[in-house]
Amino acid sequence: MSLDGYTAGPQQSKKNPLGIGGTRLHEWALPLAAWRAPHGLEGGEVNESTPVVEESQANIGATIMGRNMFGGHPGPWDAAEPWNGWWGADPPFHHPVFVLTHHPRPPLALEGGTTFTFVTDGITAALDLARRAAGGQDVSLAGGASTAQQYLGAGLVDDMEIHLVPTLLGAGERLFDGVRDLGGLQLVRTVAAPNVTHLKFVRR
Amino acid sequence: MSLDGYTAGPQQSKKNPLGIGGTRLHEWALPLAAWRAPHGLEGGEVNESTPVVEESQANIGATIMGRNMFGGHPGPWDAAEPWNGWWGADPPFHHPVFVLTHHPRPPLALEGGTTFTFVTDGITAALDLARRAAGGQDVSLAGGASTAQQYLGAGLVDDMEIHLVPTLLGAGERLFDGVRDLGGLQLVRTVAAPNVTHLKFVRR
Repeated sequence: MSLDGYTAGPQQSKKNPLGIGGTRLHEWALPLAAWRAPHGLEGGEVNESTPVVEESQANIGATIMGRNMFGGHPGPWDAAEPWNGWWGADPPFHHPVFVLTHHPRPPLALEGGTTFTFVTDGITAALDLARRAAGGQDVSLAGGASTAQQYLGAGLVDDMEIHLVPTLLGAGERLFDGVRDLGGLQLVRTVAAPNVTHLKFVRR
Repeated sequence: MSLDGYTAGPQQSKKNPLGIGGTRLHEWALPLAAWRAPHGLEGGEVNESTPVVEESQANIGATIMGRNMFGGHPGPWDAAEPWNGWWGADPPFHHPVFVLTHHPRPPLALEGGTTFTFVTDGITAALDLARRAAGGQDVSLAGGASTAQQYLGAGLVDDMEIHLVPTLLGAGERLFDGVRDLGGLQLVRTVAAPNVTHLKFVRR
């Protein structure tokens, strides 16, 4: 999240999925070995962000994301030219992913253990499916902002880690738009790292 | 500043100068001995916020604030019922304060060395006056949001300390509304303290 509250810049598109300036929010992560490894890349840095990233990846059995984060065109799925996500043949999840959408689509199995299941009956149904698929492990809420707002608004978030990047985007998607309160989530840990401050919240 | 970027809540008024919920942004400071002392109060806590607050008060020779922060009624000053600020007979500044306003008014000298000078010819003129009055010491920009936006937009801020409070206000005055970038201000220090995270920026 930027200092002015955005998790994506304006004018998101296939060419610019994070919107104008949005990649600045991720620059702290890209050099990290802990980010590179699940993306199939060797080497990389170790710094104060490393344990935070490792913790966010540990014990995750399933992921939920919104259609906008899964990406591609809006509206019904195009069977002739299927959009299979931003992440190529071997996405970095390596577990079941549940995509919130208004448009039905058969499940999609890619390499490395990542499956995408398209859920059309709402956030609670998606959470139930993800919990079952996770088999006792945690469910990760990947984003984007609209999906986060819906789960926060429904009081369904147990843990939240905000990666606060000291930059301004000025426009785009705001993480907390329409969210009235943190629903019992309390700040329990602050980690100062290069180009980012990690703020961990846990529901008390 | 709240996690959603507000430095004051909605519906600011004489009765509720920080707007609805706005006092939550200051709760971390009120128990501190370092906050109580300049307000003429004894005792109080010492914690991770203490050196941050002490630093913000050290070597300050003058303060600039906006008319809305000085408070009272909008529009021309009411000579019959003069508004002398929120801080009583002995305000906690103890040095010259310059108030940005569109409405001329003679200077006001209160107890303890605090004087209020009302500046009608803009932010640069106010800064020049404050610099001269500070006599080599630093000039503090007290707020509110609109004043901060004007000085940030003009590239006139050398240091900025954001006290990020892990709460949502949902509405009110946003610190960075209309500010395009940080103008070279870079995050140089993060302090985790009870109920607040202090983010210090310095212009490089």
